[in-house]
Amino acid sequence: MIITLKSGCSKEAVQELIHDLETTYNLDVFLSEGAEYTLLGLVGDTASVDSRIIESLDIVEKVTRIQEPYKKANRKMHPEDSIIDVSGVKFGGGHFGIIAGPCSVESREQVISIAKDVKAAGADMLRGGAFKPRTSPYSFQGMGAEGLELLLEAKKETGMPIVSEVMDVSQLPLFEDVDMLQIGARNMQNFTLLKEVGKLRKPVLLKRGLAATYQEWLMAAEYIMSEGNEQVILCERGIRTFETGVRNTLDITAVPVMHELTHLPIIIDPSHAAGMSRMVHPLSLAAAGIGADGLIIEVHNDPKKALCDGPQALHPEEFAALTKDVFAIRQALETAHKK
Amino acid sequence: MIITLKSGCSKEAVQELIHDLETTYNLDVFLSEGAEYTLLGLVGDTASVDSRIIESLDIVEKVTRIQEPYKKANRKMHPEDSIIDVSGVKFGGGHFGIIAGPCSVESREQVISIAKDVKAAGADMLRGGAFKPRTSPYSFQGMGAEGLELLLEAKKETGMPIVSEVMDVSQLPLFEDVDMLQIGARNMQNFTLLKEVGKLRKPVLLKRGLAATYQEWLMAAEYIMSEGNEQVILCERGIRTFETGVRNTLDITAVPVMHELTHLPIIIDPSHAAGMSRMVHPLSLAAAGIGADGLIIEVHNDPKKALCDGPQALHPEEFAALTKDVFAIRQALETAHKK
Amino acid sequence: MIITLKSGCSKEAVQELIHDLETTYNLDVFLSEGAEYTLLGLVGDTASVDSRIIESLDIVEKVTRIQEPYKKANRKMHPEDSIIDVSGVKFGGGHFGIIAGPCSVESREQVISIAKDVKAAGADMLRGGAFKPRTSPYSFQGMGAEGLELLLEAKKETGMPIVSEVMDVSQLPLFEDVDMLQIGARNMQNFTLLKEVGKLRKPVLLKRGLAATYQEWLMAAEYIMSEGNEQVILCERGIRTFETGVRNTLDITAVPVMHELTHLPIIIDPSHAAGMSRMVHPLSLAAAGIGADGLIIEVHNDPKKALCDGPQALHPEEFAALTKDVFAIRQALETAHKK
Amino acid sequence: MIITLKSGCSKEAVQELIHDLETTYNLDVFLSEGAEYTLLGLVGDTASVDSRIIESLDIVEKVTRIQEPYKKANRKMHPEDSIIDVSGVKFGGGHFGIIAGPCSVESREQVISIAKDVKAAGADMLRGGAFKPRTSPYSFQGMGAEGLELLLEAKKETGMPIVSEVMDVSQLPLFEDVDMLQIGARNMQNFTLLKEVGKLRKPVLLKRGLAATYQEWLMAAEYIMSEGNEQVILCERGIRTFETGVRNTLDITAVPVMHELTHLPIIIDPSHAAGMSRMVHPLSLAAAGIGADGLIIEVHNDPKKALCDGPQALHPEEFAALTKDVFAIRQALETAHKK
Repeated sequence: MIITLKSGCSKEAVQELIHDLETTYNLDVFLSEGAEYTLLGLVGDTASVDSRIIESLDIVEKVTRIQEPYKKANRKMHPEDSIIDVSGVKFGGGHFGIIAGPCSVESREQVISIAKDVKAAGADMLRGGAFKPRTSPYSFQGMGAEGLELLLEAKKETGMPIVSEVMDVSQLPLFEDVDMLQIGARNMQNFTLLKEVGKLRKPVLLKRGLAATYQEWLMAAEYIMSEGNEQVILCERGIRTFETGVRNTLDITAVPVMHELTHLPIIIDPSHAAGMSRMVHPLSLAAAGIGADGLIIEVHNDPKKALCDGPQALHPEEFAALTKDVFAIRQALETAHKK
Repeated sequence: MIITLKSGCSKEAVQELIHDLETTYNLDVFLSEGAEYTLLGLVGDTASVDSRIIESLDIVEKVTRIQEPYKKANRKMHPEDSIIDVSGVKFGGGHFGIIAGPCSVESREQVISIAKDVKAAGADMLRGGAFKPRTSPYSFQGMGAEGLELLLEAKKETGMPIVSEVMDVSQLPLFEDVDMLQIGARNMQNFTLLKEVGKLRKPVLLKRGLAATYQEWLMAAEYIMSEGNEQVILCERGIRTFETGVRNTLDITAVPVMHELTHLPIIIDPSHAAGMSRMVHPLSLAAAGIGADGLIIEVHNDPKKALCDGPQALHPEEFAALTKDVFAIRQALETAHKK
Repeated sequence: MIITLKSGCSKEAVQELIHDLETTYNLDVFLSEGAEYTLLGLVGDTASVDSRIIESLDIVEKVTRIQEPYKKANRKMHPEDSIIDVSGVKFGGGHFGIIAGPCSVESREQVISIAKDVKAAGADMLRGGAFKPRTSPYSFQGMGAEGLELLLEAKKETGMPIVSEVMDVSQLPLFEDVDMLQIGARNMQNFTLLKEVGKLRKPVLLKRGLAATYQEWLMAAEYIMSEGNEQVILCERGIRTFETGVRNTLDITAVPVMHELTHLPIIIDPSHAAGMSRMVHPLSLAAAGIGADGLIIEVHNDPKKALCDGPQALHPEEFAALTKDVFAIRQALETAHKK
Repeated sequence: MIITLKSGCSKEAVQELIHDLETTYNLDVFLSEGAEYTLLGLVGDTASVDSRIIESLDIVEKVTRIQEPYKKANRKMHPEDSIIDVSGVKFGGGHFGIIAGPCSVESREQVISIAKDVKAAGADMLRGGAFKPRTSPYSFQGMGAEGLELLLEAKKETGMPIVSEVMDVSQLPLFEDVDMLQIGARNMQNFTLLKEVGKLRKPVLLKRGLAATYQEWLMAAEYIMSEGNEQVILCERGIRTFETGVRNTLDITAVPVMHELTHLPIIIDPSHAAGMSRMVHPLSLAAAGIGADGLIIEVHNDPKKALCDGPQALHPEEFAALTKDVFAIRQALETAHKK
């Protein structure tokens, strides 16, 4: 961290600031006095330093953070790609996983039928919502514990690992046999929940908040990792922008940016992004082209009757057409890179 | 709700849709066939109808919602201003309440000293964070239960009611003697928490999420109210925009908009919006001018050493200068309107 | 256009409104009176009706536009893809064009050397800025007319058609021999300029404004087309969002959305979007995957010394690696779709 | 400007960079080598240095700009408030000017009638659009030159100076007798137009672009000022955000921010911001409270029939009620500060 001081500040004030920084944060501080600038270089672990507080001091002109505030998620600390293994399905480091299933679990028949269909079409994992975060208290809120049981039945029937969203710490005991926990976009900064899943030893699918910056998203991952659970998969699902022609704007650039900043895998959720089923296929191909580590896609056997988020779900046969194109792109790039 | 059908759809398809709507949602449906448009008018309680699902149907061109999806928060259902009484301090219906205090409770001396100062300067209520939602897991996370006890001591000492943020359902038992519960911006769509505070009979200060629309904000209030707790005060604290010259952009227009859409009071948090103490005074005067129902302001006796959010806190004497100007504006408008 | 009237409005007021609509806009108006809603259906050319004015009337509850306000750009009026032919290089309808070249023309050697390199690597057209819209008046503003001459020399040398940005109506005479005119993001709503290029019979590359909605973008195309010039190619180059980790957020979803709304081709500019050269390759592959009709890419023989926008330019050999992968993806998708 | 180099870069590379900086930009460069950081301090006029180019160099970790890139608009260079005198009406330095009038000039009677009404209600200047930037080519585009003549008649009739929007350099000769030129939001980065009005000696009202940052806005002012015309008044008129409940989000914080960064006056346009006439009164009071240097407000004698932007125009009597409250607030604050 570099602190640029205002011109003309007294030697005493500078010495007092150096002393405060050394004692409050246990850092080494180096002073560099130039013709026009006086700079302080801070050496040590600056993750806990709030640069805004320093910047509010009278003698400070500007604070420049050199170290990122995330450590365990930082690629600099872990240059190799992390490969997250979810009961045998791998994400990251060249592994591409496809998760598919209904938005909400609605019935035994529905979830098992969809599970078989998506497996046949190339899916590796099953998704399904039991606890649903709905904007309106008057909308269907999910089947709850019963929904999780139906998912587990579908897992037994098809052999696919499952992922489902946990909305509150109190629900965690119900998720013991669920292979991966999903933290939804609206809970990305539910810090109590992040810390609790950080104490588990189970993969976590961390969706990006609708208005979360790259750094805030990584800090949310850091909350989980700092408690000891390093099995985090990031999921980009669209951000909120001024554009209202689609529900959210898929930030496809997040894929190469995350691959640069962190060693964690990142997958794409094209269903929630645009909120329209006919955008899911093209957005999935963009994800395959740009090198995402996987996809999570809503599939429903009767999208028009789906109790929630029907408009964005694919028919199983549409999903099969999608995986075919995704695999074609991935293979073409692999072949091109081998030559 | 009005459904515009695509031109050229068959009579059978239209009848099937009418039948589905009547049976699924228990609504009356009226058909209007024109030269170029065929319209369906839906009459009844359409709050649970997901317009996106209807819009995804092949024969549907467009869906227009006439009724707002919120009911208890809707001014149409409750034309009079709600006056929320927090242990004697009133907000709304012409009552203007000023809440002030430190971002975080740090010590007995700190919180009592600040409480006395802000009371002397015109504050009606004391704020103070015990559980702090921090972006980084490595930042100070608040004093927790001990912080709440210190707040209660300050309340006893000064007679001012208190408000503090609850971050998780599990913390609720600790808040029994706290006069108003604050739901923070990051938890505005923590639906489990909203439902639980909805079961209490205690005022709730509901901050707007950083990227929440007016309607989503009112739906969050509706979550609380639909459980029976109608004592909700809205708080605008800045939204996330492209502008990075300030931390967040205070959406001052939210005041007249909320006064139109809902009967609930709305107050302004100028401290968290801009994130710079020197913006707090002018933003508070804007709030007084536009007719907000109150203010919540961070005050610290030593802002430069504050353990969190120091840069945005006012000195007690700056706060006193602020309340003086706020009262001057309110009185001027009252006098002008009496003439 | 459907107008929903407020409940309880008088018959006289309704008749007066119908009369006003018929006479002011020359439309047919159909009245539909239901139990709870009274609706007016407007039939005819509603493109010139300002729905906000109607919505501000006392007796009106809501206005729903059924027809899009753009006509010539609308796919409904022109279901086939438009193929834009720029001196032999085609965009749209399955044709994929690659435009490459330096941000600014800097010298004869520079532009000819880059032109040869990008042609060898698979580019179809040459780009180069002569008039540069720079945020600061103190930055290099481009070589002007001389830059255009150097571009024309490079065209003669390589046979590639050229595209360059025109910033003002007064510069148009200089662009007579330029094959395609570029309207930059900052000028997307410079309506005087749009009308003037609409009077020409020359392809126009219309970049999306940083905060332009899909509809505003199409209305800008409509300005050009309504004057008679229907050779418009749309270019998505990143929109302004809250995220500051990259310069702009590439809205890749614009590709399938535009393919639905309009018959005009859409290409992607990955260089200006992220503003970092190492993002250009992955973003280009996303564009190829999602089915864009082309790319426009900045290439420089010495990016570190480029007088403007150096950080986002590729070396010629990086560009060659990019085109190889882009072609691989396009071929894989073609093969997959033939099976 | 401070450049932080990556750790472990060779002495030769550092010396080469220093040499390049000194010769390319004519700056003095000071080297500071610490245990963990190597820093370069750049002294001199860094306004023309593109920090993104420096940051893209292999050996550079980060670039921190200390000096703002704007000079003539910078308050540091001109600590006193600028007072802009528009034919006798003053803005800034404690002077508060009110501009009012119709969105578009529609007829002689209309503009003169409104001019008299707003003058009687306390307006200082008359506004009126002759050339209108409309989103749709099919909407009314303004009366053009004839509209300017009618404005001049209204000026003669009432004695009020006038302001009107110029959309293109070619229109400038028509504006010779117009007292202040307005640059609209969509043209804020029409650099050709900015330079041309910079060559005049006439006040310019510079509206903020819908997605322009504070710095880009000031750089647009700098374009005008760098050509010699220092009579610039800034106008905040709402920015584009995710919120669609109002047309644009008025960024009221821009007032204190601009008062800090620049010596130029800033006024508020509440009419275009929210786009709804019933928001104009409360937003104007927020502007008065926060200390804006003036207002520009749309007033129409028959808002429902206004040819453009009718929904946001006030009736003359509504405008009179507004000015009364605005004056009450301003006087209350003056009195409070005198005590």
